[in-house]
Formats: sequence, C-alpha cells, structure tokens
Amino acid sequence: MRKLLMLPGPTNVPDRVLEAMRKPMINHRGPEFHKLHENIVENLKYVFQTKNDVYALTCSGTGGVECAIFNVIDPGDKVIMPIGGVFSERMAEEVKSVGGSVVEIPIAWGKAVKVEQVEEALNKNEDAKAVALVYNETSTGVTTRDLRKIGDLTYRRGVLLIVDAISILGGDELKVDDWHIDICVSGSQKCLACPPGLALISVSERAWKVMEKRKTRQSFYFDLLACKRFYEERKETPFTPAVSLYYALDEALRMLREEGLEKRIERHRACASALYKAFEALGLSLLADPEARSNTVIAINYPEGVDDAKFRGILRDEYGIHIAGGMGKLRGKIFRIGSMGTVTKDDVLVTVESIALTLNKLGLKASVEDAVRAAKEAFM
Amino acid sequence: MRKLLMLPGPTNVPDRVLEAMRKPMINHRGPEFHKLHENIVENLKYVFQTKNDVYALTCSGTGGVECAIFNVIDPGDKVIMPIGGVFSERMAEEVKSVGGSVVEIPIAWGKAVKVEQVEEALNKNEDAKAVALVYNETSTGVTTRDLRKIGDLTYRRGVLLIVDAISILGGDELKVDDWHIDICVSGSQKCLACPPGLALISVSERAWKVMEKRKTRQSFYFDLLACKRFYEERKETPFTPAVSLYYALDEALRMLREEGLEKRIERHRACASALYKAFEALGLSLLADPEARSNTVIAINYPEGVDDAKFRGILRDEYGIHIAGGMGKLRGKIFRIGSMGTVTKDDVLVTVESIALTLNKLGLKASVEDAVRAAKEAFM
Repeated sequence: MRKLLMLPGPTNVPDRVLEAMRKPMINHRGPEFHKLHENIVENLKYVFQTKNDVYALTCSGTGGVECAIFNVIDPGDKVIMPIGGVFSERMAEEVKSVGGSVVEIPIAWGKAVKVEQVEEALNKNEDAKAVALVYNETSTGVTTRDLRKIGDLTYRRGVLLIVDAISILGGDELKVDDWHIDICVSGSQKCLACPPGLALISVSERAWKVMEKRKTRQSFYFDLLACKRFYEERKETPFTPAVSLYYALDEALRMLREEGLEKRIERHRACASALYKAFEALGLSLLADPEARSNTVIAINYPEGVDDAKFRGILRDEYGIHIAGGMGKLRGKIFRIGSMGTVTKDDVLVTVESIALTLNKLGLKASVEDAVRAAKEAFM
Repeated sequence: MRKLLMLPGPTNVPDRVLEAMRKPMINHRGPEFHKLHENIVENLKYVFQTKNDVYALTCSGTGGVECAIFNVIDPGDKVIMPIGGVFSERMAEEVKSVGGSVVEIPIAWGKAVKVEQVEEALNKNEDAKAVALVYNETSTGVTTRDLRKIGDLTYRRGVLLIVDAISILGGDELKVDDWHIDICVSGSQKCLACPPGLALISVSERAWKVMEKRKTRQSFYFDLLACKRFYEERKETPFTPAVSLYYALDEALRMLREEGLEKRIERHRACASALYKAFEALGLSLLADPEARSNTVIAINYPEGVDDAKFRGILRDEYGIHIAGGMGKLRGKIFRIGSMGTVTKDDVLVTVESIALTLNKLGLKASVEDAVRAAKEAFM
C-alpha cells in the first residue's frame, strides 16, 4: 500500500532528496563541505527572502526556537507573547527557562492575535525587549495574518521580533526583511519537504547588536555568534553538522528553486483551499477562524462520537494516509492535516475521499462525491 | 580517486547505512517509529554495556555533553574536571555556562588524569557534586585508562560521574554499569560509523534521582526527564527526531551486533597499534604518553619544517586520504588520524604508505618500506 504522509511534518520526502543522502561522507572541515554549506545558505536566503545571515542548526525546530531565546533573552527581560496553542505555550516555556518574564496576550485557540493587541501590550510595557510569536500555530491551524503589521510596529518601537515560522516557511508568504523579522526560525521537515533534523534560523543586524552587547552565554551548543564566526571565517559550523541532512536540504532547496517560491506558495494555497472546501461540503466544522486559516495545517473538529484513534487508525491502516491528532487540550477533539512540501492535487483528492469513506465506516453520513467535487471545483 | 576518511569523525559510512537513509519518511508519532526507536535503544544498551536508560538526541556530540550538564548541574554546583585538551576545555565552558563552579585538575596535553589526582581533588572538595571528564580526548589522542578506578571512587563517594565518550564508544572498552558511569555521552559519527547528527546518552538511577529533585530546568530542548517520559509512555521523543539518521543508526548498530562488540574493539586496537608502530618506524614522535595512547585517535607531532596545510593538502588531493590537523593551541603542530568505525588493515596500510610518500615529497627522509613493514608486522 502506498503511504501518504499528510502530517504537519515530517512530510513525504521526494526521491531526489532521499537519494542525496546516499552520497559518501565528507570532512565537515574541508572544501567540499564549504561549498555545500554556501549553496545551502544562499538558497535559504532566497526562501527567507532576506539579506540577513541564515544558519542550518543540527536540531529540531524546537531546538531552533530555544536557540533564538538563548541568544537574545536574558534573565528579567520582558517578552510580549500572544499565546493560543501548544507551540506558543512551548515558546513561552523556553522564555521562562532562561529567566525571561512573559507578558502574555491570551488568544483563544483557533484565533490569531491582532496588531492592535500587540500595540496595546507594547504601550503597557514600554520596557519590553521583544515580541515573540508563532506565525503558524501547528496545533490549531492558525496563521497570524497581521505579522507584517506587527513587524512594522516592533521595528518602529525598537523592539525585537522573534518568529517561529516552522510549519509555514515555503508554504505561505513570509518576507523576513520587508516585515522586519529579527530572528525567524523554521524547520527542514515541513514545507521544504526535507527530512527532520535541521532548524533554520535568520538573524538581523539588530539582533546581532543585542547579542554583541551581552556578557553571558546561555548555551554553548546554541551559540549564534559562534555560528557567525565559523561561517564568516571558514564556511563551517562550530560543531559537527548532520552532513547527510545538509545534502538532503541542499537538494530540497534546489527543487524549491526549480519550482519557484511563488509557485510553491500558490500550490500550498490551492491545496489548502480545496481541503477547506471539501470539509465544509462534508459538514465538518473547522477549528480556525476563517480569516486565520492556515495554508499548511488544517485543523478539523471531530463530529460527535468519532473516536480519534479509530478514525486515524482506519485512515492509516486501510487507506495508507497518515494524519495527526490534536495536541494538548485538543487531544482527541480535532484532527489535523498537514498540506505541505510535495503536496499535490492528487494527494488532496485521495485524502478527502478516504476521510469521507472512513467517516461512513464509522457510521456517519458523509457524501464522498460531494466532498471530492468540492475539492475538485476549488482547484479549477 | 577513492576517498578515505581517516578523520576523528565523521568516518566513512558503509553502503548499508547510507542505503538505510533512503527509506521513505514515516510519522515520528506512529507505530513504525516506535519499533525503530525500540530497536535502537536496545542495541545502544548493548554497546554502552548498560541496563540504564539510553537516548539518541538530535544534535552533535557537543550538544549531548551540554545536555548532560544542563540536566544535573545547577548554579553554584562544584564539578571536578581534569582539563587537558580542547574537549575537556569545552566541557568546562559548558559547566560554567550554567553557573557551575569548575574545580580544575590541570593535565598536560598528551597526558591522562590518574585516579589519585581525582581522589585528591575529591578530598579537598567534599562538597563536589560531580566529576566530569573526557574519556578519550579527541584533540590529543589520549585515553583516560583510569576511568574504571575513577568510577569506583565516585560511586563510593556518592558523587556523580559524567563522561564524554564521544570518540571512543564502540572502539575501546567502556562498561557503563560496571564502571558506574552516571551519564555517558557519545556520538553517532565515530566508532559506530554512522553519519553525524545524533548524540547518544545513558542515564543512571542516581542521575535520575538528582534530576527529579531539581526545581529548575535549564533547557527545554535538552530535557532528559521529558525524554524518559516520552520513551516510557509511547516510545517517542519529545520533539521531532532526525528520522533518517535513526534509520542510519539502526543499521549501523545492526552491523555492530553482527561483528560483535568485542571484535570491533579488537579491530580498533589492532589498527591503532599498527599505526603507532608505523609512525615510530618513520621516526615521528607521538603526542600522547605511551600508556595513555588512544585506540581511536592517533596524534602525531609534525617534524620540524612540515607545513600542516601542505601536508594534509597533498594527502587529500594526491592520495584521497583525509586526516585532521591540530586543534586549539596544537593547531599547525600536530596531525591527527581517526582510526574508527569501518577502519580496516587495508585502510591503515594505504594511510601509512601515503603519509610516508607525502613526507618524502616535502623533502623529509622517510622509508616507505620500513613504515609499511612495521604496520604489517603489527597486524600479525
């Protein structure tokens, strides 16, 4: 049976990218690695739409977010954080771990923060050092559409903007320079369709200035100034990188350039839009506010009486389609579809059909034809 | 030209291991991953010779050492540390980063700490929480042969023993349980012949007790209690692991089991021994004390007038053999050979021959025949 990952990461990885990992090992302190590393950095700048410095860290996306926090947040620093899902909660935990003081903007799960809320928090906390937020909340399928406006605001106010863009980079609009994002973090295994194991991070001039003034270091492994020094001096990383994953990322980025960033974003939009239409046709309710719906993670409320394990088990074992359940307080209450990376119209249609069939098997009336038709129409 | 990595990591990776990474991506929260993860953990316990809990972390070896420190060292804790190379210096930096107080036992680079020195330091510092040391100092080619005795000592004294065994696990004797090592850290890309990107870490009951009593958490990403909880409850990792590298590690560990740990260690010993004999025949001086010489990393002093970049450049570009230079204050003064992972008699002989030929090219008298004969005799 064909296995189709429709997870919010990791995604299906194209053969070309898997094949790249078969290349023989090289010295990470030698000329071959230097060239590989430079290619990756140049192509990452294209994806991040930035002239800032960009690094690929050997760790998961969560490690990348912690790296951002370790490098600019000192004990006692005030950080304004909209919190409305597992990943914004996690980011707040990371800020607290280093002794940072979190000024929470509570957001209902399924809604996105508005620029006015951030402005109000900034007005009340003029000593805030940073605003830190999750651009695409993977646990709720919510995208912060006001990010550009928030970036304008924090830039004017001289406050750092730290963004977790793990599940969205490459799948939706994200302009690091135009939007004044000081530290932007992403992951290899989402819209870039690369295996997991690398976090990607961009760092602005303003963020470097903050780091250069610091007297302490919170982590030896996650030291961005060391990354900068090693890259500038010798195109190397401070510590041994996951060379095979660098090969994979290099190939994944080449594929992205061949497709073009605009086209890739458009493909993600089209697939997400078809999924939303199909679920509406099935009469299912969506977790995210219509204006905040993500183009990469689709979160659907379970109809009364549908068991999460059974539903996802049938989809996986009988149709070969892997989707995710809810996280945190939404565990058992929603299911989530990652529409990312290599996702195509065919993937969407087979997913929609299989979900409708699974709902029927579980005793719910769901019109397979209506759902598939709605998805097909959305693609037209 | 065939490329032969004789680096102290990463090493040549066998085809079987490279091939394993081509497998399709899977859900890291699904049954296939659970089985893969269990296999890895069981085989790691065999290699570490332990019944303790063992984890594969997505990070480099340095990240693994920092994880150990983050989890058991609190601000103000006294840690006794023999320091005699780049990696013990690095470990001390990590202890200081979290506010730990380092009681240094200074060791000349090329020598190993003796149990008596550790005992003396423990007598003078009865409030020490831990002894932390590098079992095999990759920057000097020195192995701490007293590790077993040090482990007996710290166990009796109720002091934690933290060991960086990155460049030695699988290549020399290392008995985590018999030697009472509380936290032992290794890396995927050394004697296990797997690509880099995973740190391996074992945790004793005593270490868990220390962690369970702590009130603070130094890192969210490097949280061993979370690793324990996720593994025990669902055979998962707290954050997305580098699945492709898990495939590789799984295969690398299967190969190690097929060979057998004893035989693999014996192979490393035989290869190192032949290299030492050959360099002595060439009249080169070795950095490490005879009784502390490593079976995995061989450090050789450059003869007067040999330029590091030229020497290693010829070896690499004309013979396809990649070796390492010196680190820290030994940069330019020594070269280092990693004799690890898949290393064979043929690898050793071609390395010895090529080094002798390179020395000749650089105007030094070196008998290729004598060197190769000495190495061959050592294998007999």
